[in-house]
Amino acid sequence: MNFSYDCSITFPTGFKASGAIVGIKANGNYDLGLLVSETAATSAAVFTRNKFKAAPVVLSRENLIKSGHRTRAIIVNSGCANALTGKKGTLAAIGTVAEVAKQLRVPRHQVLVASTGVIGRELPLKEIKDSIPGLLATLKSEPDNHFVESILTTDKFPKQVSLEVALSSKKSFRIGATAKGAGMIHPNMATMLCFVTTDAAISQTKLAAALGYAVDRSFNTITVDGDTSTNDTVYVLANGASGVEVKTPADYRVFADSLLKVLRELAMMIVRDGEGATRFVTVNVESAASYADAVKVGRAVGTSPLVKTAIFGGDPNWGRILSAVGNSEVKFDPAKVELKLEGKSIFKRNEPQPVDLRILEEMFSKKEIEMTIRLNAGKESARVFTCDLSYDYVKINGEYTT
Amino acid sequence: MNFSYDCSITFPTGFKASGAIVGIKANGNYDLGLLVSETAATSAAVFTRNKFKAAPVVLSRENLIKSGHRTRAIIVNSGCANALTGKKGTLAAIGTVAEVAKQLRVPRHQVLVASTGVIGRELPLKEIKDSIPGLLATLKSEPDNHFVESILTTDKFPKQVSLEVALSSKKSFRIGATAKGAGMIHPNMATMLCFVTTDAAISQTKLAAALGYAVDRSFNTITVDGDTSTNDTVYVLANGASGVEVKTPADYRVFADSLLKVLRELAMMIVRDGEGATRFVTVNVESAASYADAVKVGRAVGTSPLVKTAIFGGDPNWGRILSAVGNSEVKFDPAKVELKLEGKSIFKRNEPQPVDLRILEEMFSKKEIEMTIRLNAGKESARVFTCDLSYDYVKINGEYTT
Repeated sequence: MNFSYDCSITFPTGFKASGAIVGIKANGNYDLGLLVSETAATSAAVFTRNKFKAAPVVLSRENLIKSGHRTRAIIVNSGCANALTGKKGTLAAIGTVAEVAKQLRVPRHQVLVASTGVIGRELPLKEIKDSIPGLLATLKSEPDNHFVESILTTDKFPKQVSLEVALSSKKSFRIGATAKGAGMIHPNMATMLCFVTTDAAISQTKLAAALGYAVDRSFNTITVDGDTSTNDTVYVLANGASGVEVKTPADYRVFADSLLKVLRELAMMIVRDGEGATRFVTVNVESAASYADAVKVGRAVGTSPLVKTAIFGGDPNWGRILSAVGNSEVKFDPAKVELKLEGKSIFKRNEPQPVDLRILEEMFSKKEIEMTIRLNAGKESARVFTCDLSYDYVKINGEYTT
Repeated sequence: MNFSYDCSITFPTGFKASGAIVGIKANGNYDLGLLVSETAATSAAVFTRNKFKAAPVVLSRENLIKSGHRTRAIIVNSGCANALTGKKGTLAAIGTVAEVAKQLRVPRHQVLVASTGVIGRELPLKEIKDSIPGLLATLKSEPDNHFVESILTTDKFPKQVSLEVALSSKKSFRIGATAKGAGMIHPNMATMLCFVTTDAAISQTKLAAALGYAVDRSFNTITVDGDTSTNDTVYVLANGASGVEVKTPADYRVFADSLLKVLRELAMMIVRDGEGATRFVTVNVESAASYADAVKVGRAVGTSPLVKTAIFGGDPNWGRILSAVGNSEVKFDPAKVELKLEGKSIFKRNEPQPVDLRILEEMFSKKEIEMTIRLNAGKESARVFTCDLSYDYVKINGEYTT
């Protein structure tokens, strides 16, 4: 089971994609993408939990229900989130979907939509409509980076991955996925868009369960800045074009774990590309009373600005890590907690362990830093991925709309 | 009732203070302070809720109980938090307190201790002991900035305030307080030290209640970076030297509100001096279902790195404010929320309101920014104070220990 990074959503049979330059993004890059399944695919989605949901999120959720989770196409734009845009925003999302449905000649509930970018700005519906014929004309099933690029905002590189998976029957199916990340990444997937395709045949119930399982253990364990957005969406389309059916419990395990592998790979790319990130940090939390506790502790460390700036500065200020653990509102006995950096015990049984300052500085100056927090409060563990907080994060976010 | 900013903890009758340079702080500034009450004062304290509590916090909590909340002196150092320092740290705190008690000839449970600075570093007990005779010899009741300076770490300016308060009996008492702030300031008072003195006579029960009330509405409504520390402490000493007793419910209200005024003034100074802060932000949350909800929404906005960097950059990205509100996990109907900037309605009944972009940019470029979030979910309101997130925050925190 090997990843390919050259292709993604069109790697599974029966999917086509394209991209266009509409001018929504000021930098002149691709900003409108279309993904089409040749037949109606079984679909599932995970959306943001932010109370202010963007118009495309509200509409797509409706369309999924009204179509019985059958989807033919997804249209996505970057540069404008179409969030907090009122009735005009709702009409713009409806208008976009209607136009795609009309030109593709499919029921409009079988079209989903996603947007990412500045909040509170109007979506240029006319320009989007005008670009749809071009999107349809350039759809292709070969590896195509135009769709992949059309979803990016402050990302420094595109993120895509695909996989061919064999079931016990020796038959194989394919999964491909692309995501956008950068800022506002946090549990519950802030301003994160992800599109997954597979040519496996799978029931909607199983597909939705596998997606929930995989998102919980991938996107929901990463954090860039602790903020979560109005637009987060992960879509998965399964069109069955491989003729391979995910039927037995064993098949389901393989499917769900393959989906998790693909999403975790994208999640880690997102952290590596966190706004202004210069270091990649893995926070292992071990022997927590529950998985939720373990993730909570990992997030407390991964979102602490004091931890993140210390890591940016290569400053071996390990006390901030334990201070963040102490703030996590999780049950544990502080006297039992152990902190390890790069496998070396730093603090244990209420005592700092003798470690050479130079060794500590070396640990903190690496591009990839791994820390382990052993709570000794139970049997569950989790890994949270995060990055440092740099000048560039401030720069990127201080001038985002201007 | 007018504030004075030239004096603080020695303004009430019967208190003396001094400061010394021990060399714990690398910059050569005052780093050890002593506050003494001529008679045993009634005392109360609020400590950090972080699970990892520094040695001085653990010891002082014990001493307050063992002395029946009677206190003669407080010794404080900056430059070293004496947190996560194990048994050595405990012994260093005990040794410091014992030495002060011995030289002052008071019971050792009547001495409290506080530390702030780098976590996980050993406190130089010998140097501290050697400095105590000097501290005692220089104690004075005149305005003295040496104590006030001795508590600072990354603060750009000292913070002190005092007040003379008349009760209905026309008799008056005095309150003075000094605090250190800067980074790690958050609800529950992270790495924040505050020392309050008063010459009013008041029962310990009333004093503790007034302190809880005032801290909740002052330090617990400010946030710089959302982190909370191992060392936060607010001490209040009431020595009764004015001969004025806080007895009636009306007197108590005056006392508690005066304490709140003093602490709120210090809290706002702390935000103004937030690490790297260039703008002061007031977040008003109105018509929430409860006071706790209102504060929660205010904190969600006040800790959002995306909101704080936008404000630093003068970027009128108001969508991020509502996105933060939407993440606050408080009950409200998003369709009923209104956002006002500088009194101008920006978003209302699910619709962005027509506002000129230039006016928005002007609003966001001010040194002091006020925003109001009306939830229309109830009758409670709260004000949260915060600052922006700048390059300097990253710089200060990227090289704190080095």
